[in-house]
Amino acid sequence: MVNISKPSEEQIEKIIDLALAEDISNGDITSELLIPPELEGQASILVKADGVLAGIDVARQVFFKVDSSIIFETLIKDGVQVKSGDIAATITGRITSILKAERLALNFLSQLSGIASETAKYVANTHGLKVKITDTRKTTPALRILEKYAVRMGGGYNHRRHLGDGILIKDNHLAALRGSGMSLKNIIAKAKLNTPQGLKVEVEVNTITEALEAVEAGADIIMLDNMNPEEMRNAVSQIPSHIVTEASGGITLDNIRIVAETGINIISIGALTHSPKVLDMSLELKI
Amino acid sequence: MVNISKPSEEQIEKIIDLALAEDISNGDITSELLIPPELEGQASILVKADGVLAGIDVARQVFFKVDSSIIFETLIKDGVQVKSGDIAATITGRITSILKAERLALNFLSQLSGIASETAKYVANTHGLKVKITDTRKTTPALRILEKYAVRMGGGYNHRRHLGDGILIKDNHLAALRGSGMSLKNIIAKAKLNTPQGLKVEVEVNTITEALEAVEAGADIIMLDNMNPEEMRNAVSQIPSHIVTEASGGITLDNIRIVAETGINIISIGALTHSPKVLDMSLELKI
Amino acid sequence: MVNISKPSEEQIEKIIDLALAEDISNGDITSELLIPPELEGQASILVKADGVLAGIDVARQVFFKVDSSIIFETLIKDGVQVKSGDIAATITGRITSILKAERLALNFLSQLSGIASETAKYVANTHGLKVKITDTRKTTPALRILEKYAVRMGGGYNHRRHLGDGILIKDNHLAALRGSGMSLKNIIAKAKLNTPQGLKVEVEVNTITEALEAVEAGADIIMLDNMNPEEMRNAVSQIPSHIVTEASGGITLDNIRIVAETGINIISIGALTHSPKVLDMSLELKI
Amino acid sequence: MVNISKPSEEQIEKIIDLALAEDISNGDITSELLIPPELEGQASILVKADGVLAGIDVARQVFFKVDSSIIFETLIKDGVQVKSGDIAATITGRITSILKAERLALNFLSQLSGIASETAKYVANTHGLKVKITDTRKTTPALRILEKYAVRMGGGYNHRRHLGDGILIKDNHLAALRGSGMSLKNIIAKAKLNTPQGLKVEVEVNTITEALEAVEAGADIIMLDNMNPEEMRNAVSQIPSHIVTEASGGITLDNIRIVAETGINIISIGALTHSPKVLDMSLELKI
Amino acid sequence: MVNISKPSEEQIEKIIDLALAEDISNGDITSELLIPPELEGQASILVKADGVLAGIDVARQVFFKVDSSIIFETLIKDGVQVKSGDIAATITGRITSILKAERLALNFLSQLSGIASETAKYVANTHGLKVKITDTRKTTPALRILEKYAVRMGGGYNHRRHLGDGILIKDNHLAALRGSGMSLKNIIAKAKLNTPQGLKVEVEVNTITEALEAVEAGADIIMLDNMNPEEMRNAVSQIPSHIVTEASGGITLDNIRIVAETGINIISIGALTHSPKVLDMSLELKI
Amino acid sequence: MVNISKPSEEQIEKIIDLALAEDISNGDITSELLIPPELEGQASILVKADGVLAGIDVARQVFFKVDSSIIFETLIKDGVQVKSGDIAATITGRITSILKAERLALNFLSQLSGIASETAKYVANTHGLKVKITDTRKTTPALRILEKYAVRMGGGYNHRRHLGDGILIKDNHLAALRGSGMSLKNIIAKAKLNTPQGLKVEVEVNTITEALEAVEAGADIIMLDNMNPEEMRNAVSQIPSHIVTEASGGITLDNIRIVAETGINIISIGALTHSPKVLDMSLELKI
Repeated sequence: MVNISKPSEEQIEKIIDLALAEDISNGDITSELLIPPELEGQASILVKADGVLAGIDVARQVFFKVDSSIIFETLIKDGVQVKSGDIAATITGRITSILKAERLALNFLSQLSGIASETAKYVANTHGLKVKITDTRKTTPALRILEKYAVRMGGGYNHRRHLGDGILIKDNHLAALRGSGMSLKNIIAKAKLNTPQGLKVEVEVNTITEALEAVEAGADIIMLDNMNPEEMRNAVSQIPSHIVTEASGGITLDNIRIVAETGINIISIGALTHSPKVLDMSLELKI
Repeated sequence: MVNISKPSEEQIEKIIDLALAEDISNGDITSELLIPPELEGQASILVKADGVLAGIDVARQVFFKVDSSIIFETLIKDGVQVKSGDIAATITGRITSILKAERLALNFLSQLSGIASETAKYVANTHGLKVKITDTRKTTPALRILEKYAVRMGGGYNHRRHLGDGILIKDNHLAALRGSGMSLKNIIAKAKLNTPQGLKVEVEVNTITEALEAVEAGADIIMLDNMNPEEMRNAVSQIPSHIVTEASGGITLDNIRIVAETGINIISIGALTHSPKVLDMSLELKI
Repeated sequence: MVNISKPSEEQIEKIIDLALAEDISNGDITSELLIPPELEGQASILVKADGVLAGIDVARQVFFKVDSSIIFETLIKDGVQVKSGDIAATITGRITSILKAERLALNFLSQLSGIASETAKYVANTHGLKVKITDTRKTTPALRILEKYAVRMGGGYNHRRHLGDGILIKDNHLAALRGSGMSLKNIIAKAKLNTPQGLKVEVEVNTITEALEAVEAGADIIMLDNMNPEEMRNAVSQIPSHIVTEASGGITLDNIRIVAETGINIISIGALTHSPKVLDMSLELKI
Repeated sequence: MVNISKPSEEQIEKIIDLALAEDISNGDITSELLIPPELEGQASILVKADGVLAGIDVARQVFFKVDSSIIFETLIKDGVQVKSGDIAATITGRITSILKAERLALNFLSQLSGIASETAKYVANTHGLKVKITDTRKTTPALRILEKYAVRMGGGYNHRRHLGDGILIKDNHLAALRGSGMSLKNIIAKAKLNTPQGLKVEVEVNTITEALEAVEAGADIIMLDNMNPEEMRNAVSQIPSHIVTEASGGITLDNIRIVAETGINIISIGALTHSPKVLDMSLELKI
Repeated sequence: MVNISKPSEEQIEKIIDLALAEDISNGDITSELLIPPELEGQASILVKADGVLAGIDVARQVFFKVDSSIIFETLIKDGVQVKSGDIAATITGRITSILKAERLALNFLSQLSGIASETAKYVANTHGLKVKITDTRKTTPALRILEKYAVRMGGGYNHRRHLGDGILIKDNHLAALRGSGMSLKNIIAKAKLNTPQGLKVEVEVNTITEALEAVEAGADIIMLDNMNPEEMRNAVSQIPSHIVTEASGGITLDNIRIVAETGINIISIGALTHSPKVLDMSLELKI
Repeated sequence: MVNISKPSEEQIEKIIDLALAEDISNGDITSELLIPPELEGQASILVKADGVLAGIDVARQVFFKVDSSIIFETLIKDGVQVKSGDIAATITGRITSILKAERLALNFLSQLSGIASETAKYVANTHGLKVKITDTRKTTPALRILEKYAVRMGGGYNHRRHLGDGILIKDNHLAALRGSGMSLKNIIAKAKLNTPQGLKVEVEVNTITEALEAVEAGADIIMLDNMNPEEMRNAVSQIPSHIVTEASGGITLDNIRIVAETGINIISIGALTHSPKVLDMSLELKI
């Protein structure tokens, strides 16, 4: 079963507006010239490959935004496994409106389903283990909220949604502070003192020594960056259980199970969102 | 050599604003809590794979948008072939600003370079032939202008930028008009009469018979959809040379040369933009 | 019969918002102070001169934008000839809302009808000839889409809607390129190579020699600028029929028939939109 | 000498943005394809008819908005009488930028100068009399602030800028209140009680009887609607001098002096702004 | 009874959008994670102190903006005196929506009611006298239209809504003009000549001499700044009754009656809006 | 010393724009009519009461937004204690610009300084104890980011900035879930499983029993709502030290020290922001 809620229409309205603007801000001149505005018809969204569906409500919102009188009937919900030949939805209404919305609706739906499908493969490869697969901030500009939703639809979990969603002290921060004479302990303490009350403090470390220093300093989450499985298992065993551990870097479908078996709590994977391959779909029109 | 101009800063300002908003609308709390605002440093953008660069000015604009006092020195221009280990640019200024802009700048640059790199492979496979490789409207929502630019950087050409950029009569339009009793000829004539003066009329056909009917009807461009190479060669030979021919559907890196050898003028490929794999890059910080 | 479709509500929403903002962003203090908000009534839009109506849906949208509960009944459609004394529409609803919308609705309707009426005069003067009367880009700032629609309502056709709607190489472009050593032929070839596939290439010429050079260079449209009728007839006769010819400059209601009789395909006229005289109308209120 | 200040750049930024968007939101593809972006040149704005200039700073702002590196040298200021052949300004910078801004800058400048020129004719016809010529709210949608400025440049004055700029009780308000049993006196008293402190109360009347009732009721301004000169002179003589009188309706260049000679304080004229004829201008480019 | 109309939903939409954005632009993660989206319930808005209600429609609009299917039943209207324990409204609908809107709705309602309650105290202290209590421009940034409405709900009146709402010549203007050699009379005359026709001219004076000079100069309103009651009574008696007088500066609940008894027309009080104390309220949820 | 960084100009630009719009969207007609635009002068911001300054950069940004050529010299920084008679800043530039910005700049500065001054009193009353004084979400609509900054300037700390800033399970959530059969333990576990990785889970409890149940369930923060000091001391002593404790409800300047002495970690106080009294200031102009 998939976890937590979907983005609201309000949250994605701007990106839909911008995306419609780039395609139809000068109208759809072909349809306007040729097809009577009152002519109605029906269309189906046809799935043409196997995977996990995500974004059906976004597709619906695109059609609705173009023409609020369109009737969009969802046949398959997000998070469900689909096969080539499935019909995801039917759309009824003015032909000119359906054709205006077609390309953008399919672009959203096929790209988000691509992400959900890829995530599901990573999740499947850790079957039976108590690890969470999470995304990163390596998302498509302006589509993050949708892509992180697609990850959840594929059975994954979300890491930080944005730079305000918790403290994450990385190598670059430590490098920047090296000249200041602050120890790792001081740095974490300063973060814990001043952060808004609801946020955790996470630290990226490269060695077990650093990990233990972070434990002592009171970090809430410790990210073990690019460690090999043995080092990672060793680090995990020495970190108290109320502190969360995370693996990051170089994880693929091939090696994820070995990483997961170290007992790590979270595995974060950039490729879930930065290199999506679409799940092929098309719109089939009937009059 | 790559063709025509790059998107202006004004044209992509909204997408950058939206993308920054999703990441730093609540600020970058980690850097704000830890790093003195006046602390300055330098960073490099390191290329970590081979391909073609695209989007370096977008990356620069992201840094500039976050902090207009940042100095961004471009070392490699868009459209140039890069190798793993190359430094694309150096950035000098406040550390907190560099870290705020880092992720979004890299997301743009690595995704657009991915598109340019993929396009370059298709172009290479038609080397010596007089065909144009073009994109389609299967682009990432709201990023189309950038993705079409990346295609040009890879040596490709642009098809319609949006639904107002010329008339394109597809199967769905013909299906919608079937009941009206209009012939293909009537349909094209109606389009030619009423369209704004600067726009061409293109028609999608599936057979040579339809192609010739479109010729007679005065189409400016004829798209041969999913034809095999023999049919296509035959069709191309019968269409007068002042009418443009286009191949579309099912074209891959493996079969593109065979298609190009039919004498077709344009080959349009959705995969250039709908399934981009990033060109890996990172930001390396020095104080 | 008038040609192609009207602007959608979405397309003109911003201009209506801006226009309402300049008039009622501080409310309509007179009505708010004096008239009970629940008081309802009816009003008519009275035509006070002869001409062609255009913009009735824009007027309706203004009323609707101010108060979506208003009932606006259109009695005369756009493109229809009207006489002084005609009632174009009736409006029923809250008096305060009707009075808030009155001025802006009338401003749109009377100005757009002025353009349609003027266009109709030019069209009448070419009766029986196969020429198209078109507008130019000399339109009122921010109202272009509406004004070009009004031209269509008067029986005219549209030239380029904006600078992205086809290539038009004018004297200023040629002047700018003079120092580059490029010939007219090179210039047109460069434009044809790189333009998005759906756009035509038009060239402005002043002599028959230039016109023929443009033919040879592959121009899709040739604009004959400020030629006298004899030169124009001569030029038209030498340009192949698959290339479109356009007359521009110095054309009035008095001389348009002579120009049209040269066989030219298009006559473009700036005065249709840059010097509109309103078609007088008023709103008559009944309780 | 002309009166009060010009609109600030901030006040007209939205309308310029909207107007640029309708023309170049897809870029200026002709210039981008053909002219090297770094090529610079100079252009002049040439006046081609006699009149009064208005809008030169708006033209400058358009060029600046398109390219902030353009140098715009104003040679003739707003409010000055111009003759055909005058050069209003010179522009130096990138050719592509100059060509992008050309049309919109000229559209603003020629239309606003048309309004100033028309206003100046009405003002000239009341030379030596102490009357103010004012505009109305019959302005081009979204351009009001500029058009009212153009009226001032022609020597006129402004009536209400918008519906919040003072109370104006017209026939329609009185008609709406007829059923309520309120007398004209009650109506004016109610308006005076509740209006924000800085606003005047004006009433439109059709007869001397009504005018005197309005005086008694405490109106600050009395508009004498469609009265003939004799009635008007009579009314003006009976209204105390601390109350402002205004003539409205049916006033032309031919009859304005007779109206002015009644002693009326203000004459308001819709035609100043609702039927502008442009003052012809062009942009001449040199490399 | 309270005077004039309330702000329309359109007028306050932007501030509600901005206020919702700062609280729920990243969603309400607590409710989204825990509460089923389809779960419905009912809530009451409980008043917890004595005062005057203002803002109930703003609260309703907040709930409606978050979820347009919520049913909001107003039990107490704006301008009504309330006691601790009163129920101002009941809300029925999705629990997640009610909880998302709760805080902002209460923040608006309790703050605006605080202003109305404070105003009512000043009004009560001038009971039986013919003076108007008005606000100033010392309002909370971006909330002015609502705060001035709350003042009206408490029985007060509005002074200028913004800097365009009439002319008000203050000490700073006179100081700025001191070097110009213009007399007070010249200054006022210049203002009266050029202002749009519906606006009054007010002048701030410190002495009776200045007040009389302002009378002679034709001021419409005279503000007596920081005068003691005797001076004020003296000044009021010498100013003609058709000119409005205003007291400003240092007026409290304790001394307002003495000021009012001078016969002054208007008393303006910054503290009505610049130091509001909330009227305590809470939302009580039932399933 | 005050903690963490101030809001960036970008973050508060919208609220400044909206606030300027409500005051000067129709310009400052008084200054425009009377004061020559080129006239320059100098002004001081005079503090007229004792307290803590906050918002000086916001004031500067308001002046800069109105006129970017204004020179604003900050004499006293945010977080510093001020006395009546202090000069906080001097402003040099065009008089018309200074007068346009005056009111809004003072409104921001005096209201934010009011919050900082009030916070400083609470902090002073817990001197020597290790408790943090925090704000709540009871802030002025749209001004939260500034008000929370003012709290920090007064020596306080920030609780959640918005509903996405951590999980906070309150009585209303528990009430909503009562019918579901979920135990408190289940509810917290569900929250911890699905929340983005950087966020903490806080629970509001009313008794020690509930507090201990929350401990067992793994809550990161426990809010003790409206407990008396003895209960609170008891609860605090039984909660493990790695879990944060918070006191909320009914806390005043009089009783805060007793609450703080229970050993509680955080005390949150709505009155810091919901009932601000301004710190009085004025702008003094010199030519």
